[in-house]
Amino acid sequence: MITSTSNGQVKELIRLMKKSRARDEEGVFLVEGPRMAGELTADEVWRRRIRKIYVSETFAAKRPDEIEKLREVCPLELLADPVFAHVSDTKTPQGILAVVKRREYGLEEIIGEDRSRAHVLVLDHLQDPGNLGTIFRTAEAAGASGILLSRDCVDLYNPKVIRSTMGAVFRLPFLYVEDLPKAVGELKQSGLTVYAAHLEGKNAYDEEDYTGGTAFLIGNEGSGLRDEVAQCADCRIRIPMQGKAESLNAAVAAAVLMFEVSRQRRK
Amino acid sequence: MITSTSNGQVKELIRLMKKSRARDEEGVFLVEGPRMAGELTADEVWRRRIRKIYVSETFAAKRPDEIEKLREVCPLELLADPVFAHVSDTKTPQGILAVVKRREYGLEEIIGEDRSRAHVLVLDHLQDPGNLGTIFRTAEAAGASGILLSRDCVDLYNPKVIRSTMGAVFRLPFLYVEDLPKAVGELKQSGLTVYAAHLEGKNAYDEEDYTGGTAFLIGNEGSGLRDEVAQCADCRIRIPMQGKAESLNAAVAAAVLMFEVSRQRRK
Repeated sequence: MITSTSNGQVKELIRLMKKSRARDEEGVFLVEGPRMAGELTADEVWRRRIRKIYVSETFAAKRPDEIEKLREVCPLELLADPVFAHVSDTKTPQGILAVVKRREYGLEEIIGEDRSRAHVLVLDHLQDPGNLGTIFRTAEAAGASGILLSRDCVDLYNPKVIRSTMGAVFRLPFLYVEDLPKAVGELKQSGLTVYAAHLEGKNAYDEEDYTGGTAFLIGNEGSGLRDEVAQCADCRIRIPMQGKAESLNAAVAAAVLMFEVSRQRRK
Repeated sequence: MITSTSNGQVKELIRLMKKSRARDEEGVFLVEGPRMAGELTADEVWRRRIRKIYVSETFAAKRPDEIEKLREVCPLELLADPVFAHVSDTKTPQGILAVVKRREYGLEEIIGEDRSRAHVLVLDHLQDPGNLGTIFRTAEAAGASGILLSRDCVDLYNPKVIRSTMGAVFRLPFLYVEDLPKAVGELKQSGLTVYAAHLEGKNAYDEEDYTGGTAFLIGNEGSGLRDEVAQCADCRIRIPMQGKAESLNAAVAAAVLMFEVSRQRRK
């Protein structure tokens, strides 16, 4: 059991927790809490990507059977409770934390096997961690096939974002790209119709047919879509708004659009 | 100009900023930032409810014309920049802060003038400040007539929540009630059909007709609707979900339902 916060592994964990560059360099991310850890170990592909699981002394004492099972599938390390609390990103640490190797998806996985049923969300310069987590969670529920992100979007591997996806990050393919207009062009070449959510959109979002392969472009919380990205769309759509509301929260706009796809496809 | 943080008014401002009980006792709330302050002064009813506006030295120096205009409509006090920063709830204070008397709405205002077009959102024990702000912003855009909240919902008058409504809090009637089932009963007596958003709902939300007076019950982020509240509904509806998603974020669920009302009423 590790009892000191100056232990090398502990220092490395804190570096991975706090620094996106450290996570990028190592190609890993951190998953905290029994629920999220359970999702990892229940999935065969993800289970093989667990580098190590860290559990607190108390967690191990309370759940000896679970610890035995975990030991069979991956390396496991015990941390004294104060050391675990020191490492944890949460106010009330739940005593389990996994270091997981990232999974790389390609554009074909974002689109999914059946191109005519593709349902892709494209995020341009999204900046709010809470929005990104909510968007992943919502996208899975609405049946999206995958998410494409511009390189300057907020870091999905931020531990807070990972938690707020409620596990959707393990199930929904996603891809950060350097050149978003180019990637959107590839979606179009694959037969998807690309809609830009835009305050100046011509058609109301519910006047379009989303039963075929569909992609939505969603822009930054403050400034919306960049022109060079919006210009890639086949069509600009707007969500009609009443009152004096000037815009919607990005996660809300994405939800309204994605659940309209879901509604139309259920008919 | 107030130059000391131990000034009585400054101490009172900090108390109002930090303590919901202090705000409740005084029947006021705080509005920070030029945009939100502009909404207040542009609206005749709200303008008369401004108790005092505090501006930073720098703000006053940069916008002398605006300061003159403000002085005509309400009491105004200058704060030295460090004093303003001390009082402010934001990381980068924008130099203007208003103390505003609350407005009290009745159930008839929540329902709106035309009962047959009522569109009410009922929140049961909602706990996340960000969700509440987003729900207000979304509700205005979706054309809701008003919001009903159980007394144990998160405090709308929290300065962060006020900001995140993006001004919708000034335009959308709302009412906290002690006895939520009783208030929902009154909505039904007024002819509204009450739908509970429920994971065990029988009908998909998009199979219902919302062109008449409609109310939605939305529950707590973790535990959903309390049984005694859900039982008040005429009908339980669910938002069909794909993948392994178990639930939606409360603000997302509310958005999907409210924009379905908006969609049906535009047809």
